[in-house]
Amino acid sequence: VLNKEEITKKLETIIVPGVNKNLVEMNYVQDISVADSTVSVKLSSACLDESVQEYLKSRISQLVKDGGEAKTAEVTFEEIKPNVLNKIGNVIAIMSGKGGVGKSLVSGLLAVALRRHGFNVGILDADITGPSIPRMFGVSDNPSCSTSGILPVSSKTGIEIMSLNLLLPSEDEAVIWRGPVIGKVITQFWEEVLWGNLDFLVVDLPPGTADAPLTVLQQLPVNGIVIVSSPQDLASMIVRKAVKMAQKMNKPIVGVVENMSYLHVPEINKDLEIFGSSKADEMAASAGAPLLAKIPIDPSLAALCDKGEIEDYDGAVIEDLWKNFGEAG
Amino acid sequence: VLNKEEITKKLETIIVPGVNKNLVEMNYVQDISVADSTVSVKLSSACLDESVQEYLKSRISQLVKDGGEAKTAEVTFEEIKPNVLNKIGNVIAIMSGKGGVGKSLVSGLLAVALRRHGFNVGILDADITGPSIPRMFGVSDNPSCSTSGILPVSSKTGIEIMSLNLLLPSEDEAVIWRGPVIGKVITQFWEEVLWGNLDFLVVDLPPGTADAPLTVLQQLPVNGIVIVSSPQDLASMIVRKAVKMAQKMNKPIVGVVENMSYLHVPEINKDLEIFGSSKADEMAASAGAPLLAKIPIDPSLAALCDKGEIEDYDGAVIEDLWKNFGEAG
Repeated sequence: VLNKEEITKKLETIIVPGVNKNLVEMNYVQDISVADSTVSVKLSSACLDESVQEYLKSRISQLVKDGGEAKTAEVTFEEIKPNVLNKIGNVIAIMSGKGGVGKSLVSGLLAVALRRHGFNVGILDADITGPSIPRMFGVSDNPSCSTSGILPVSSKTGIEIMSLNLLLPSEDEAVIWRGPVIGKVITQFWEEVLWGNLDFLVVDLPPGTADAPLTVLQQLPVNGIVIVSSPQDLASMIVRKAVKMAQKMNKPIVGVVENMSYLHVPEINKDLEIFGSSKADEMAASAGAPLLAKIPIDPSLAALCDKGEIEDYDGAVIEDLWKNFGEAG
Repeated sequence: VLNKEEITKKLETIIVPGVNKNLVEMNYVQDISVADSTVSVKLSSACLDESVQEYLKSRISQLVKDGGEAKTAEVTFEEIKPNVLNKIGNVIAIMSGKGGVGKSLVSGLLAVALRRHGFNVGILDADITGPSIPRMFGVSDNPSCSTSGILPVSSKTGIEIMSLNLLLPSEDEAVIWRGPVIGKVITQFWEEVLWGNLDFLVVDLPPGTADAPLTVLQQLPVNGIVIVSSPQDLASMIVRKAVKMAQKMNKPIVGVVENMSYLHVPEINKDLEIFGSSKADEMAASAGAPLLAKIPIDPSLAALCDKGEIEDYDGAVIEDLWKNFGEAG
């Protein structure tokens, strides 16, 4: 019989064009009701333009007809904000205060680690003026936008990515915006992007403790901060500013990652601490959080990031991140 | 006889307490006039509190008396804005778009290079939320402030430094400010700091192309930009954004510096390009400016920066910067 469950199962077979996920996965289905002669399906219309709506109507009608109970389908669309549809389990902000210590790298590696273990993961690139995530994952498609929302772009392993660089005419275009505009873009990336069902949304913050990090910590339901540092004293001094900002704003720091900890030189079989001796334990102590990983300088990783193939990296650090992040969370 | 020139010479012997430079060097002397029985000296009062004014009055009276012509001195002070007194030959902004590629390092090394060749140099640390300059130069004194201005802090070789970190209660304090406040601090560092006579003011910008760089390029008379990059593709993509910003704002790029070009490993006598092959020439071409220097990763330099002893560095890069910057300018 055509009951709600049956219909839901059928709707799971309808892949939404452009999204490449099924109706149920995307939380598009708002309501299903079955009466004597009609099956009513109420869908949200976030990010669905008219032609896609028509397509979905006809597909649903067909499925109801194929159900063999001589019922007709009544499909309605309701305009809805993407963030009402999104179901996001955890929002993890990657923060550092200091630029260039590897926030984007840690964001990328953490997303890859979580994805490899079966989680649905997205990355919100909040570094509006210096976004690195699309290049790292080799994504460059323009996100499809409709009046009701923006769809993220999927990486090859299915990590959902939204970055301003995907919306620019060319990736080296300068974005000369003041803080309030940048803040608005970040809240748009949260409210108007149809992330769908995610276990983790990793937010890659820009350096500093000004507008962009402040907007993210104030307006997004961040439930964990990962602090990224490097062995340089100078860097850790500035990173401690980020720790203080997180503490002032009562956001839990779930872990600390030290990047550029050492360089392994195979010719002499030595680990060289070229940026000074590790400050990882010290940083973890001052942040009151566990050390998740020490990332060595690995030329092969830098090369993969430049080629957009971070998802192919098989360094031990991915499993470290997975294991320690899991334990910390 | 006590003419203007004679008096000026005498004023050159009066060191202003707190500033440790003489009255003439600081452009404090606004006017000198000699009448039958009096010598009138009009001084600007920027950054001079009352006790210092009294001290200066008595010193000048004494000098006039010692002149042996039985004249009396009449010393008046006129409240004046520091930026009216400042005489700054060149304002050089160090820019990159990408964080952590070494803007502060290049700012520091360029200042050291210019200072070693006898120029008067200041550094305005415009990286308000992540300032690195004081730590690098080992300065931590609070600048003396009066209602009429702020005095920069001198490094051991006499480089004048102003940074928000010098004004904070502790250097790892977080500065959680939005763009407009940050912009105001930067213009204060320009207008209300008594830099005095400088041949070069080096402005260390924060990463990105948002508020702080925008404020500097719009409100300070920047007459040269130095672009800092690193060999990573990813970095150079973002650095090109800074190049485009400079071009859009019609500011001349006087040179490009590549940082972290390679690591010299003495054990195997090899230069390892651990962040990928150099993109220096490519960056210089796309910026339409000469390559000023390729800075290797040098653990001894990182250590000096951490210890506040960048002025003791004797790597070849200092002379490269000096030579090529001189030719470019």
